[in-house]
Amino acid sequence: MHIICPREELQKGVSIVSKAVSNKTTMPILECILIQTKEGRILMTANDMELGIETEIHGIIEDNGRIAIDAKIFSEIVRRLPDNDISIETDGTDSVKIQCEKINFTIPGKNADEFTFLPEVERLNCVTLSQFTLKEIIRQTIFSISDNENNKMMAGELLEINGNNLRIVSLDGHRISIRKIVLKDSYDSIKVVVPGKTLNEVSKIISGGTDDEVRLYFTENHVMFEFDDTIVVSRLIEGEYFRIDQMLNSDYDTKLTVNKKEMLSCIDRTTMLIKDSDKKPIIIGITDHSMEVKLNSAYGSMKEELAIDKRGKDILIGFNPKFLIDALRVIDDEMINIYMINPKAPCFIRNDEGTYIYLILPVNFNVY
Amino acid sequence: MHIICPREELQKGVSIVSKAVSNKTTMPILECILIQTKEGRILMTANDMELGIETEIHGIIEDNGRIAIDAKIFSEIVRRLPDNDISIETDGTDSVKIQCEKINFTIPGKNADEFTFLPEVERLNCVTLSQFTLKEIIRQTIFSISDNENNKMMAGELLEINGNNLRIVSLDGHRISIRKIVLKDSYDSIKVVVPGKTLNEVSKIISGGTDDEVRLYFTENHVMFEFDDTIVVSRLIEGEYFRIDQMLNSDYDTKLTVNKKEMLSCIDRTTMLIKDSDKKPIIIGITDHSMEVKLNSAYGSMKEELAIDKRGKDILIGFNPKFLIDALRVIDDEMINIYMINPKAPCFIRNDEGTYIYLILPVNFNVY
Repeated sequence: MHIICPREELQKGVSIVSKAVSNKTTMPILECILIQTKEGRILMTANDMELGIETEIHGIIEDNGRIAIDAKIFSEIVRRLPDNDISIETDGTDSVKIQCEKINFTIPGKNADEFTFLPEVERLNCVTLSQFTLKEIIRQTIFSISDNENNKMMAGELLEINGNNLRIVSLDGHRISIRKIVLKDSYDSIKVVVPGKTLNEVSKIISGGTDDEVRLYFTENHVMFEFDDTIVVSRLIEGEYFRIDQMLNSDYDTKLTVNKKEMLSCIDRTTMLIKDSDKKPIIIGITDHSMEVKLNSAYGSMKEELAIDKRGKDILIGFNPKFLIDALRVIDDEMINIYMINPKAPCFIRNDEGTYIYLILPVNFNVY
Repeated sequence: MHIICPREELQKGVSIVSKAVSNKTTMPILECILIQTKEGRILMTANDMELGIETEIHGIIEDNGRIAIDAKIFSEIVRRLPDNDISIETDGTDSVKIQCEKINFTIPGKNADEFTFLPEVERLNCVTLSQFTLKEIIRQTIFSISDNENNKMMAGELLEINGNNLRIVSLDGHRISIRKIVLKDSYDSIKVVVPGKTLNEVSKIISGGTDDEVRLYFTENHVMFEFDDTIVVSRLIEGEYFRIDQMLNSDYDTKLTVNKKEMLSCIDRTTMLIKDSDKKPIIIGITDHSMEVKLNSAYGSMKEELAIDKRGKDILIGFNPKFLIDALRVIDDEMINIYMINPKAPCFIRNDEGTYIYLILPVNFNVY
């Protein structure tokens, strides 16, 4: 193989596919990036067996072929070479010559035959989204997945399509995050659980432009994201997702409306009195027109009052402040509605249109 | 005590004195910031017994007094409060009320009597420098101190004043860094060894403006830096510094002139083929008009050629690339002169004016 590419192209390619390079592995080939020529194109690929990414880079093919190169060293070299054309060349052996201006590197490569290629995903059942929308709904829900060893399902997010409705759901046993969007087109029903890691990496790679598209393809065991010059293929999590609809509830005894930014700043301030290991709840007391937020810990105590609009009963309820913060951070509305029933029942933050629902379980607390 | 200060003032004060708060200590009082009123001023102080910092903050004194507060919690609170006036109040007990708008914190304080106050340094022997100059000479030498347990002297820098000449020196057994500057005024001779940690922290606090002054005062065991609203008092390292003048040498067999930026980029590129634990030297081959830089490691090999001007003999010499990088990074000249004698003798990077000298010991290497 012999290719010549601008440094910029190599750098872009490396930064995209590196997301699927294994960090912890006993198989050195999983730490490699595959570079290959294929039908007049230059492709870079990485695959950690759960997640695979392939992207096209632009350059000149002098000689067809393929080689696997340690991702870390290759990325370091590309990063520090001058901004000029870079030649990558293999001879019959597994060593790779990388050359730019008067600089010559020779590094060991690996036989490309050892590399596990991406599974073929047929381009059927294509769902089209804007990159902006996909990036947003991931950001707005990804924080409530859980890497609970006992329940693999919690490490993924439910992606559910019915007609032109898309719903994305994550939950960790203490809270549920739901976002709904309306798609441009209608599709057959789809219900899959995508690993959180995949969604995280995809959301880092896509530009997030409103005019840029991402196309999703589904097979029984895989999902493929296709955008720009890149495809991302990931395993799906097998099994049936939690029945969340029966956990949702529109009854309430207390409804309050509060300025989101004020409430977020207030709760954020409480957290400095809590160390990580410590599970101190904040206590929220709702009376007419006022929300009193209190926290007491070994490091001190804090009390703050916020103005609110209230309907229904007064209530005194405890929360893990982190769960409130996570939800409030990803809501864009200036004013938000919070619904409560009693200090033992889930609390809901949701809008009237139902485009977002954040369910948070309260925690027990001692009155002080 | 009761004071009211704008948040900005508190934040500025905390960020300055925090540099002298102990991170690792079994004495909780060393993790505190002392706040006190003194002769109509509000002072914040921290002291880790090696280094003490005191700074004035501006605000209103409602009631005189003093209290020690855990630096970490206090700084978190100040950081997250709204940008408004903050009231800090103690009653007879050791608890502290911090209040801003509708937000109330109560945190435990510590009795100020436990606090170790800064040693008094008489304002004699004042040496005046611009903050810019002090910051620069620290940056240009601090990298070659060493925290060698067997030789405390290496953890400091020699500060030597003769007439209107100031010389600052650091060394770690493999290299020596020297900067000389001419002061505006003449002073009595001074020769002290200042802990590297002190210089590091001072250089972080000072703004580095060319019009801002810093005044240095010396006693037998202490140095005090005074600038803006702040004083930094530090112990000196006791004992006699290394006799460096006898290590310096102006003989050479090879003199070369090279573009600094090109040489730095080149050597920087070699380091990606070296892991931290690995002590691979780079090999530099000097011939007429050309410097060839080579490195061979388990991760690959690299070769690069640079154009140079050369006088004297050809030479093949090995270096720890980090030492060259450290020196080259802090030299501002576009073209630099490097002087060598043989592959076993120290190499010197210096200018004709003698304002900087970087001595670097070569290392053994196997020719490949």
